[in-house]
Amino acid sequence: MFKDVAQAIKEKNKAIIQELAKKQIASGANALDVNVGPAAIDPKTSMEWLVKTITETTDATLAIDTTKQDVMETGLSLCKSKAIINSVNANEDKMKNLFMLAKKYKASIIGLTMDKRGIPKDADSRLELGMKIVSFAIEYGISMDDLYIDAVILPINVGQSHAKEVLKTIRDSRMLSDPPPKTILGLSNVSQGAHSKYKGLINKTFLAMAIANGLDAAIMDATDTELMDELITAELLMEKQLYCDSYLEAYRR
Amino acid sequence: MFKDVAQAIKEKNKAIIQELAKKQIASGANALDVNVGPAAIDPKTSMEWLVKTITETTDATLAIDTTKQDVMETGLSLCKSKAIINSVNANEDKMKNLFMLAKKYKASIIGLTMDKRGIPKDADSRLELGMKIVSFAIEYGISMDDLYIDAVILPINVGQSHAKEVLKTIRDSRMLSDPPPKTILGLSNVSQGAHSKYKGLINKTFLAMAIANGLDAAIMDATDTELMDELITAELLMEKQLYCDSYLEAYRR
Repeated sequence: MFKDVAQAIKEKNKAIIQELAKKQIASGANALDVNVGPAAIDPKTSMEWLVKTITETTDATLAIDTTKQDVMETGLSLCKSKAIINSVNANEDKMKNLFMLAKKYKASIIGLTMDKRGIPKDADSRLELGMKIVSFAIEYGISMDDLYIDAVILPINVGQSHAKEVLKTIRDSRMLSDPPPKTILGLSNVSQGAHSKYKGLINKTFLAMAIANGLDAAIMDATDTELMDELITAELLMEKQLYCDSYLEAYRR
Repeated sequence: MFKDVAQAIKEKNKAIIQELAKKQIASGANALDVNVGPAAIDPKTSMEWLVKTITETTDATLAIDTTKQDVMETGLSLCKSKAIINSVNANEDKMKNLFMLAKKYKASIIGLTMDKRGIPKDADSRLELGMKIVSFAIEYGISMDDLYIDAVILPINVGQSHAKEVLKTIRDSRMLSDPPPKTILGLSNVSQGAHSKYKGLINKTFLAMAIANGLDAAIMDATDTELMDELITAELLMEKQLYCDSYLEAYRR
């Protein structure tokens, strides 16, 4: 959905993609989300080109982000390091296929707490779907270290009541199994449709709130400096980083 | 400890104090913290002058902020609206005296989860002291609506492990009684001693994290616009405010 990425895929412009990848990693990204976009005419070929282009320049973990199973397998098969499947929802048929792929490619996998009926309104229903995902992971021999539960945040202007339910889902996900699955958030969803001047504020505030509830990972723009500042500070306050007076500079070094 | 306030008290300059009070309220403060400072030569007379000066210009709730019992009673006796006692620690002799004052003046009261031994390291020990404070409040007929538990945050450069324990204390304080006591935080403590360029970032990040754990109130600078922006956004995400596209402007109107 990013115009520059769409353009680069269309024109097979490696430099733009590789530059973007390097910039995200230099800014602190631990993995890169790879998505050919909804408009790709030949998504499989585009994914192949995209993964090859990125792996030429970095060994970083890639999250193959597609709803199409054949495009997913194409991406996974080309990854040189551990990959992440982004994502599977809690429908049984989908889970069977994608957990098989996770097993085959020793990939991590993101499970969304939503199914055919849509996104549940409250935390308890989200956790029920989370439990279903955890059971499937166990059945397919995927370790909890490789499973990320995404509680699926709705835009605040669409479902204001969802934010606190997502926070509760993140907090209580650690009770789904022992050891617990990890938690992840597609962050920018929360501010989609909000006034553009407030998107950054909503994103960073919600990220700090989610980290305070135990969030392990986020799909977000690592080049957004204010967002990263808040992330680093929140992790500091959760004692995930060691404090020093110039902690932002230290983190970035 | 604010130079302008100290100077104003010394010179009996009403205008400075009244201007400060009006500015805080216009920025969204629901109550004003009144503290004569540690250096005041005659704290009782200073408190008397300060409370009279402020009540001339506003009906806002005043939090009388002193460790001296006679200064506290002087302040409380001059308040025209409901006052807040800021604060009492969990020592029995202190609590007896200050809960009596709370009862006498129908004031709210802030109880600190610390005692003669200092500030506990973990959430459980803080909650034990919180329980002691709740018991005293019940014994003296103070309703939970009038009791604020302050989990006492240490500066991050002094006790980095405390932040997550304070967050847990805030979250679990709601289980101390039914209905639960309120929670409050002396916010700027968390960044005391940190590099000045990071104080604002640490304060606002920790505030969002505390709100995500159910914080009801904070002692903070309402004129700090970035801090208030994050507060309003966090309360929006917790559904304590109704969302609209220009929610910051709406809140401020």
